[in-house]
Amino acid sequence: MSKLLTDLIEALRCLPGVGGKSAQRMAFHLLERERERGLRLASALEQAMQRIGNCTRCRNFSEEPVCSICASSSRDRHVLCVVESPTELAAIEQATGYRGQYFVLLGRLSPLDGLGPEELGLGLLTERLAEGEIEEMIIATNPTVEGEATAHYLAQLARAAGVKPTRLAHGVPLGGELEYVDRGTLAHAFGSRQSL
Amino acid sequence: MSKLLTDLIEALRCLPGVGGKSAQRMAFHLLERERERGLRLASALEQAMQRIGNCTRCRNFSEEPVCSICASSSRDRHVLCVVESPTELAAIEQATGYRGQYFVLLGRLSPLDGLGPEELGLGLLTERLAEGEIEEMIIATNPTVEGEATAHYLAQLARAAGVKPTRLAHGVPLGGELEYVDRGTLAHAFGSRQSL
Repeated sequence: MSKLLTDLIEALRCLPGVGGKSAQRMAFHLLERERERGLRLASALEQAMQRIGNCTRCRNFSEEPVCSICASSSRDRHVLCVVESPTELAAIEQATGYRGQYFVLLGRLSPLDGLGPEELGLGLLTERLAEGEIEEMIIATNPTVEGEATAHYLAQLARAAGVKPTRLAHGVPLGGELEYVDRGTLAHAFGSRQSL
Repeated sequence: MSKLLTDLIEALRCLPGVGGKSAQRMAFHLLERERERGLRLASALEQAMQRIGNCTRCRNFSEEPVCSICASSSRDRHVLCVVESPTELAAIEQATGYRGQYFVLLGRLSPLDGLGPEELGLGLLTERLAEGEIEEMIIATNPTVEGEATAHYLAQLARAAGVKPTRLAHGVPLGGELEYVDRGTLAHAFGSRQSL
């Protein structure tokens, strides 16, 4: 097989969920039928990888110094939602009607991986809370051990600044069947039952 | 979401089997963790889309005028396998021990789509057969209506040049269960039963 073709197949494997077979199928598909779009993908990739940085205010992906959410005048400046990564920010934007601001940690507290308060930009977050505009901080870190530890730390930070910390509700997912819910979640949902 | 990011997500959808959700996951994955490999993919794509053409002898993908298979002195010059596309050539190379030459039609006879003998390079193929080296032509077009029509046409071409045409065997796939084989295939396998 031609060298450029094997290079392309190898390079396509950097995409998540793409193994050798899919990569080969993608390469042949582009070469046989979609060269124009393949070239557009190459330039979109290059532009994105080189020019997308982080917003100086919320640390979300942005090619401008301040991202469109932080710059928007129509978003609520009294609520701040803290997430681990831009992926989670996008999920919340797409699933909920949330119209407040965000702060992206780009990680979670994990001393073993060298991720402390400094790497998570907590200095920037503290400054933000000190501005006095924010009244509620929604902590939307993942419900993992490290995510929970981070949430605990963030809650202390919020209280110290006189801001009310809240956490996403945990429990049985909508449409889930009790029989198939894991024991930890079920125990938590049982303990946090709410009156009707 | 940033414009470069939405552009990248849109561009990733040109890959086969990649919809909106996967494209978003791929874009975030590359931005968060694999910028270096993302840039390498961009350059591999650009190189491949711009520089891969077709071998002047067999019409397979190649960045050289003559591809490595046609240029190789260790491949049998008496057998020629005709396939519809480079994808099928790659499948045969990877699955079988075939050591002969190839010819790629880059399509199949389909007058309604404007694909006639000229588009399939049958002039080039006729010249190749006229060289007199080839003794057997293995016709490996797909077992579809158009593939069969193409096979029929190719067989006539071969006979006219004094070359023996052969066709891949059809029948029940290895490991398949008779119960689940489609009726056409089963009828064909039954009719072409072989003595043990």
